[in-house]
Amino acid sequence: MKKGLPNRSADYSAWYNELVKKTDLAENSAVRGSMIIKPYGFAIWEKMQQALDKMFKDTGHVNAYFPLLIPKSYLSKEADHVDGFAKECAVVTHYRLKNTEGEDGVIVDPDAKLEEELIIRPTSETVIWNTYKSWIQSYRDLPLLVNQWANVMRWEMRTRLFLRTAEFLWQEGHTAHATKEEAINETKQMLDVYADFAENFMAVPVIKGIKTENEKFAGAVSTFTIEALMQDGKALQAGTSHFLGQNFAKAFDVKFSDKENNLQHVWGTSWGVSTRLMGALIMAHSDDEGLVLPPKLAPIQVVIVPISKNQEELEQINERVKIIQKELKELDITVKYDDRDSLRPGFKYADWELKGVPVRISIGKRDIDNGSVEVVRRDTKEKNSYSLNNISETIAELLDNIQQNIFNSALSYRSQNITKVDHFDEFKKVLDEKGGFISAHWDGTVETEKKIKELTKATIRCIPLDNLQEEGKCVYTGNPSSQRVLFAKAY
Amino acid sequence: MKKGLPNRSADYSAWYNELVKKTDLAENSAVRGSMIIKPYGFAIWEKMQQALDKMFKDTGHVNAYFPLLIPKSYLSKEADHVDGFAKECAVVTHYRLKNTEGEDGVIVDPDAKLEEELIIRPTSETVIWNTYKSWIQSYRDLPLLVNQWANVMRWEMRTRLFLRTAEFLWQEGHTAHATKEEAINETKQMLDVYADFAENFMAVPVIKGIKTENEKFAGAVSTFTIEALMQDGKALQAGTSHFLGQNFAKAFDVKFSDKENNLQHVWGTSWGVSTRLMGALIMAHSDDEGLVLPPKLAPIQVVIVPISKNQEELEQINERVKIIQKELKELDITVKYDDRDSLRPGFKYADWELKGVPVRISIGKRDIDNGSVEVVRRDTKEKNSYSLNNISETIAELLDNIQQNIFNSALSYRSQNITKVDHFDEFKKVLDEKGGFISAHWDGTVETEKKIKELTKATIRCIPLDNLQEEGKCVYTGNPSSQRVLFAKAY
Repeated sequence: MKKGLPNRSADYSAWYNELVKKTDLAENSAVRGSMIIKPYGFAIWEKMQQALDKMFKDTGHVNAYFPLLIPKSYLSKEADHVDGFAKECAVVTHYRLKNTEGEDGVIVDPDAKLEEELIIRPTSETVIWNTYKSWIQSYRDLPLLVNQWANVMRWEMRTRLFLRTAEFLWQEGHTAHATKEEAINETKQMLDVYADFAENFMAVPVIKGIKTENEKFAGAVSTFTIEALMQDGKALQAGTSHFLGQNFAKAFDVKFSDKENNLQHVWGTSWGVSTRLMGALIMAHSDDEGLVLPPKLAPIQVVIVPISKNQEELEQINERVKIIQKELKELDITVKYDDRDSLRPGFKYADWELKGVPVRISIGKRDIDNGSVEVVRRDTKEKNSYSLNNISETIAELLDNIQQNIFNSALSYRSQNITKVDHFDEFKKVLDEKGGFISAHWDGTVETEKKIKELTKATIRCIPLDNLQEEGKCVYTGNPSSQRVLFAKAY
Repeated sequence: MKKGLPNRSADYSAWYNELVKKTDLAENSAVRGSMIIKPYGFAIWEKMQQALDKMFKDTGHVNAYFPLLIPKSYLSKEADHVDGFAKECAVVTHYRLKNTEGEDGVIVDPDAKLEEELIIRPTSETVIWNTYKSWIQSYRDLPLLVNQWANVMRWEMRTRLFLRTAEFLWQEGHTAHATKEEAINETKQMLDVYADFAENFMAVPVIKGIKTENEKFAGAVSTFTIEALMQDGKALQAGTSHFLGQNFAKAFDVKFSDKENNLQHVWGTSWGVSTRLMGALIMAHSDDEGLVLPPKLAPIQVVIVPISKNQEELEQINERVKIIQKELKELDITVKYDDRDSLRPGFKYADWELKGVPVRISIGKRDIDNGSVEVVRRDTKEKNSYSLNNISETIAELLDNIQQNIFNSALSYRSQNITKVDHFDEFKKVLDEKGGFISAHWDGTVETEKKIKELTKATIRCIPLDNLQEEGKCVYTGNPSSQRVLFAKAY
């Protein structure tokens, strides 16, 4: 146990929980299932938001904001939707408390009962499509490409920081289109945006695929997903994009007149990623020493630690560091100078290692005299001496290199953990001993899918988009199958 | 009635409501008191957020996120706080709905009753100070400078878009300090930040002052405020910054050990601005033609409208516009080319005027031949011809000029609408006929303040910070007073 962290390979789950707390990312609150995202964690989420928001805007979307509370009757307008969400809704029934100033303290005022109960949005399709009814009349109003950054609530019984919380932060895109084809293209485009973000910012390789009927979003015609693999061999659904067909348009009577003046129902999509991505980011890269953050999402990219014997040396170092800081900032590199005087360098090293800062520079008087500094990268722990002459360019290159390397490591791990399996005994064995994705034939029925889940806890994560079509036999029933799908235990 | 807008001077209130709707800023939702912020409105709010967030970070604050739901018992820990907020809380009592699939449809599941009811945060002091208890042990943990962007809910009976809604978006800063002096300085610093933002981004002049005991925040020792004047002579509280003393630290038992190892209660502040600022922005500048947006917050700063007789001309214009767009973008100016082919230029002019775009450029073939374009500014409606040679610099300068002019107009209006009054008859007369701020002596008692409010609907907006001390007699009771305070009817 290093730095108070449980060993990752011995107890992955305890390691994750302690890591999240010790690195000040988040903590549990007194309200069951609701977390507090602490400043360091929130700074990472902000970086995610900025990158995603830019990608959404670059693909023509605009932001808006819809109400937190939804009349409960809205939920029941779409039959599958209500089945999917009714069981986990927080319900507002009253609008006033009463201070009795007596023994009872503050009580719910029985006179302030709502006529119709309101639920806290678990997702906003209903309230948004109810609004789209008045926003959309003609083909000229389409496409409508709206995104919302918001908090949502799903009353989960078992919660874990970031991975599954009752309240979480997310973005939800809700678009409306004149044609089926356009809506499907949008669904796929946003899946691509998510995959791009996961791979190029989070450095987490993902598999793009489609969910089975059993696993799709409640109210969707089809759900596309990106699936990532964590270091314990469990999969994590990192983002979903839903083709809603005309389901919500029909439920909320949203029609438009086309160019020939015919009234038609609108086609819809919705897509979202959440603070769950924080969990994926942490679990995909970090190690026994702490977090490993990809440079593009690290709130602090470079930390500088001074090493001085006396005040005179320190002042000389401070002067030199000012110049380095300035040079790094000019290249938009976020740098922190850790000049806390009560702490030893070794303590600082361990602290920033724990926090996952990608690059650490240490600088002493001798370094200045030699015109070089010692640089340690967080991912490989490799130590190098670099000239101070063009240190900012060197560091910029190093950050790119680290970003790429973190991705490559995760990709290599994933490649080693997709196992083709043709027999159910082997299926169970691989799942138990190795984990990861299992690529196996499946007969396409919900019954088999459920049976396998019951027996192994593995679910079908997705049918990969670029799937090879091949003749085969279902790994469980032996019935004919035309393609393999990916199974895994999942978060 | 122009563009379907009621006349501003005839019916300010109807003008405001229609303006907000017609310009696609916001609309009412089906949930009473909850608004939908539409994309154009949200784009302005995003610009406000960005500017404020930068100012918060520049003053050393970090963002975090705390739970939406608060156990109702938390509210009662601070006696004034519960009195102030209990009456307007949305209360969550259950965590599950049940789909009966019968006549009743979806009902609240009686088996899913919470042990302790939760309220939707009306503000987050309680949940945050409950958290600070574990974050703060030593003077080394201080100051703690945290901000949160969030939605909050206060169950208002009379609501108006942006100005008073049950759910609204805001930021709330919550800081903790080792000394009283430091906390007071923070309170004042954030008031200055708000004033800076209001004047330099929103172009709305504000008066900084302190609230009376009667008007201060429930739980604060003192509340500082910035007060703005709308074009109908009513005041609007645009932001508040509270010195909390040790009230919340005592209520939640938050102590730190100082350098001498003595345990002390922490000193606190909180401060917030909300989507209410959108109402202030709209009401402070706009006119009968529509919105007038200060360039710094306008989602579109420049619109270009082509004027062509035929396709050939249009193509020539398109080419030239591409260059102009590029030049403007290089100076970070947001530009939209309105090349909708089904609409006449006159319609487009009116449309963008309604939407408050600060600068409109129209360009025809003759303009290109002459090397100049026609430019109309939204604030003064002034029309000028400018050379195409250095058009981007010209426009950049013009935008600065417009920003300043809008502020100056508002400042001049406000100067003309602060009236010194020494008799109560005059007080009532000025309030009825002219409105605006009334500067009058007040005897310092809550009784007089309440009586004046009862008789005139005017409240004490603030005791200005830079107030002149002068002997005088209370405008209502005639009792001695040492300074004037500002009264007004308010939003």
